[in-house]
Amino acid sequence: MSAPIPPDDQNRDLGFGSVVSRESKLRLLNRDGSFNVEREGLSFWASLSGYHYLLTISWARFVAMLTVVYFLLNALFAEAYLLCGPDALMGGLGHLDNPVLRAFFFSVQTFATIGYGSIVPATLAANLIVTVESLVGLLSFAWGAAILFARFSRPTAQILFSKTAVIAPYRGATAFEFRIANQRKNQIIELEAKVLFSRVEQDETGVNRRFYTLELERQKVVFFPLAWTVVHPIDQRSPLFGLTEKDFKTSEVEFLVLLSGIDETFSQTVHARSSYKANEVVWNAKFTDIFVRPADDEPLKIDIGRLHDFERL
Amino acid sequence: MSAPIPPDDQNRDLGFGSVVSRESKLRLLNRDGSFNVEREGLSFWASLSGYHYLLTISWARFVAMLTVVYFLLNALFAEAYLLCGPDALMGGLGHLDNPVLRAFFFSVQTFATIGYGSIVPATLAANLIVTVESLVGLLSFAWGAAILFARFSRPTAQILFSKTAVIAPYRGATAFEFRIANQRKNQIIELEAKVLFSRVEQDETGVNRRFYTLELERQKVVFFPLAWTVVHPIDQRSPLFGLTEKDFKTSEVEFLVLLSGIDETFSQTVHARSSYKANEVVWNAKFTDIFVRPADDEPLKIDIGRLHDFERL
Amino acid sequence: MSAPIPPDDQNRDLGFGSVVSRESKLRLLNRDGSFNVEREGLSFWASLSGYHYLLTISWARFVAMLTVVYFLLNALFAEAYLLCGPDALMGGLGHLDNPVLRAFFFSVQTFATIGYGSIVPATLAANLIVTVESLVGLLSFAWGAAILFARFSRPTAQILFSKTAVIAPYRGATAFEFRIANQRKNQIIELEAKVLFSRVEQDETGVNRRFYTLELERQKVVFFPLAWTVVHPIDQRSPLFGLTEKDFKTSEVEFLVLLSGIDETFSQTVHARSSYKANEVVWNAKFTDIFVRPADDEPLKIDIGRLHDFERL
Amino acid sequence: MSAPIPPDDQNRDLGFGSVVSRESKLRLLNRDGSFNVEREGLSFWASLSGYHYLLTISWARFVAMLTVVYFLLNALFAEAYLLCGPDALMGGLGHLDNPVLRAFFFSVQTFATIGYGSIVPATLAANLIVTVESLVGLLSFAWGAAILFARFSRPTAQILFSKTAVIAPYRGATAFEFRIANQRKNQIIELEAKVLFSRVEQDETGVNRRFYTLELERQKVVFFPLAWTVVHPIDQRSPLFGLTEKDFKTSEVEFLVLLSGIDETFSQTVHARSSYKANEVVWNAKFTDIFVRPADDEPLKIDIGRLHDFERL
Repeated sequence: MSAPIPPDDQNRDLGFGSVVSRESKLRLLNRDGSFNVEREGLSFWASLSGYHYLLTISWARFVAMLTVVYFLLNALFAEAYLLCGPDALMGGLGHLDNPVLRAFFFSVQTFATIGYGSIVPATLAANLIVTVESLVGLLSFAWGAAILFARFSRPTAQILFSKTAVIAPYRGATAFEFRIANQRKNQIIELEAKVLFSRVEQDETGVNRRFYTLELERQKVVFFPLAWTVVHPIDQRSPLFGLTEKDFKTSEVEFLVLLSGIDETFSQTVHARSSYKANEVVWNAKFTDIFVRPADDEPLKIDIGRLHDFERL
Repeated sequence: MSAPIPPDDQNRDLGFGSVVSRESKLRLLNRDGSFNVEREGLSFWASLSGYHYLLTISWARFVAMLTVVYFLLNALFAEAYLLCGPDALMGGLGHLDNPVLRAFFFSVQTFATIGYGSIVPATLAANLIVTVESLVGLLSFAWGAAILFARFSRPTAQILFSKTAVIAPYRGATAFEFRIANQRKNQIIELEAKVLFSRVEQDETGVNRRFYTLELERQKVVFFPLAWTVVHPIDQRSPLFGLTEKDFKTSEVEFLVLLSGIDETFSQTVHARSSYKANEVVWNAKFTDIFVRPADDEPLKIDIGRLHDFERL
Repeated sequence: MSAPIPPDDQNRDLGFGSVVSRESKLRLLNRDGSFNVEREGLSFWASLSGYHYLLTISWARFVAMLTVVYFLLNALFAEAYLLCGPDALMGGLGHLDNPVLRAFFFSVQTFATIGYGSIVPATLAANLIVTVESLVGLLSFAWGAAILFARFSRPTAQILFSKTAVIAPYRGATAFEFRIANQRKNQIIELEAKVLFSRVEQDETGVNRRFYTLELERQKVVFFPLAWTVVHPIDQRSPLFGLTEKDFKTSEVEFLVLLSGIDETFSQTVHARSSYKANEVVWNAKFTDIFVRPADDEPLKIDIGRLHDFERL
Repeated sequence: MSAPIPPDDQNRDLGFGSVVSRESKLRLLNRDGSFNVEREGLSFWASLSGYHYLLTISWARFVAMLTVVYFLLNALFAEAYLLCGPDALMGGLGHLDNPVLRAFFFSVQTFATIGYGSIVPATLAANLIVTVESLVGLLSFAWGAAILFARFSRPTAQILFSKTAVIAPYRGATAFEFRIANQRKNQIIELEAKVLFSRVEQDETGVNRRFYTLELERQKVVFFPLAWTVVHPIDQRSPLFGLTEKDFKTSEVEFLVLLSGIDETFSQTVHARSSYKANEVVWNAKFTDIFVRPADDEPLKIDIGRLHDFERL
């Protein structure tokens, strides 16, 4: 199996569809791991996908949304109480005279199930609305708590990728290398890397983008406490064999990286993606040492700030 | 391993039992992925399977059920307060005079832990029922929140299958092909396809339905941002080799598809199933291009509305 | 690899420890899947394992426990309010005169955050206890809801095993077979079976219990909508080869079964275990058909009540 | 494949980085499974990683933190009510005269949604703060419940490792062995062990720490009801072959152990790690029997207290 992998078996369809990006010079995968693609023809609801949206927006935005919903719902119920007439709510100790404010704050006291009793429902209609509001309040709270928990428990890895990959000397030949580190305090184990190499090629059917899976020196590490240099040796079986820095640029190469590992905090599988385009690959360089020399009685130490550092040879 | 796979090793039992559907012309797997089978002899409770039911009904139905349960429980406790006699509940500011309504709305204020104090328990019996109702209220709410969260966090894929499969030209021969796309905004990775081929065959033991696992050009894609055409080449090793369109119909063929992938939002494995019967396979056709030609500075784009489109050759 | 599997490579240690049950005639694995083993020397807390206990007791017991805890906590806080002196709680509309009852029901109204206001805290001490009780109430409720949800979301399969296994005719020889069905409405896919065979053997080191992994005709089924007959062909490579019904009894054989599959409701892996001892294996028999013959326009149907049925040959 | 595994293919990078601990005599992996490493250069927020922190601190500390947060938030809102002026809160039945205490306990009654009504908001400003506090209260409670549940549902194994490993006689040669047992009542199945051997070696590039994966007699057990002795036979293919007790010490050997299995309670994968340094390996010894001899009608029994016991030969 030392012959070059025939492109035909590797590139027909990798989920990008059978023919992709013939002319496009843009990257397929952005540095942050999102795909640089668009889908048309989704139904409105399918593209909305509310749950996915609520899980992925920022915390600030999420809390802002909850606050807005909370005020709107209370305003809605306040309006309902007002529609029941002036006798619907009766004020006791310390109530406000303004009927709108009274209705709004009564709604708050009901929605949040506080019920001071300084304002109370006094008609059948008001009591029925209280019944509905209490149910809506309980369900809304359960809904909010469920989304909140779902946000907390989402497995997300924060893997830091070196800003550039390098073509480095490796056992008498060269290798394509990039470096990663764990940005969080959690432990990631059984970390596995997949690297796809993509380039535009000219063949009998025209100019097509082809995909190749790169063989790695080591595809998996059992432990990932510090940093890991992922290495693809450029030997005769490599689709990079014989390519020059100029070829990289003219054939619009892109290295697509998919990492998956197990986050020990929850024993959950986590994923991280990134990609390197031709201009993010430095030729004839090697990564500089990331280790801080430990004294004899000190634990191993790395400086993550040096993850991106390399030296030209 | 270029000999045809012997049916004996493939078809004795695939979870449909060792002898299935000898005479039935119906499909095994419906288009929506549910099985077209029935089980008798389940105990009443086993077949009820309440939790599974609450998770899979529509949201409208689920909320309707919660509302009904909420009203019923309050009616039940109202009855209990009424049974404690006319002095059990004492009305303060703005209470209703009708004892039934008073009891019902007092129950609501207790169940939802609002407690305005406009109606209060005034006897030992009423206070004891309050104690029970508060516990029931808290547990019911916890129960509702748990089901709600379980509904949210259920991993479900919305994979769109092309309405028809095609028998298309493929490297000088033909292939069985169908096409899928992701209907949601979430990312699915490591998508894997399994295709079983089933047909009714005549052999020495009579007419039996046989199952074969089809070999795919590519069983797995690492990324699935756009669309994927699943391809089974019809070569000499294929159980489809030599079959005609007419054979498909007379032998009641069915292609059973099982997809599994990882939904990145939660790193959860998701599944999708579908099937194609003989009349859903178009012979001598190929799928039309789903890609929208991008300009040089635009990302890749597909039009999901074209997923089902094919052209006859 | 057609030689018998040497016991040495199979039986040294399977998690039962290197030397097990030399003399014991009891089964290792009970019919319900629990292990018939005991562990001594666990610390008190480790053996208590409260969380695991709360998850696995019956619902009736769980609710009973919550109720007891609820009453005990309220009694405790009632006592605390009583210790604050006769002026600590002040009664308004409809309050009870008995100070013990007043304190208890005030505690309920506080713990469940109802707060009618018919009894209110009137001293600094009472207000401080209210502060503590409200926190305890909120935490207890969160704790109860968490356990409740954990109970709901526990993945459990209800696989029905045939009461007996059979030694049935199979392709000119015989096979060890048992049959399973899904008792629930949920779908199980990718179901996989592992069967270990265990017997007491005499060798140079004395009488020892040995374990063998049995090779199955089919180890995995993609779909499991109806029923599955698990088959181990007794050929020359089988550790059962040449054994008679009498050998089964004198050598204390036991078949340990482990099933694992994916419950589609949550895409969770579920497990089921059972075992067959010599007296639960019927020789020279075969399972009777479980299928209900469908009419041409009816779906496939099985009668789970017939799962255990076999006929002697 | 009977030749020694070349170190080159095994040791370049295992997640500890390509060059580790050349001079350090400390262990890489602590006995409790944590890594003896440090990372510099993490951003403040990344190193804080609050969620991970809240999940892994002790229960005592967690409850203490919640209590402190509860009091602080109430103090904050009390201050806000005080800032609204002396008329903001109006006292009814049994209220306290001290305005600070009144504000604090009113906040408690609002935050926990009790709302006795003995103190009520009497101005627009106070009512607005009540509205905010009720939302903060509900969100805080949902947040606390979410963290609480996350703590409960974290899959954690409590595997007990024997304090020492032994070099024991094994089939005419020797083997490296250690022993493990499950400390909890839950069942662990499909337990798998990986053992890495690490030592400092002198070669042409200097003194380097090398890693080797050890082949185990049995890498996986299906069931783990009692105890398991993990065995690495020291044959010619073993990187331990020919090494003496003295070599172990001078070359700073360390055995890194990673266990993974499935906790049946939740069908969750759980992990456990530990390591053995040279001084934790006893040469020419074997583990003593952990089994308590059962009578004929008793189940198998082990005494976990004897897990660490060995006898020198």
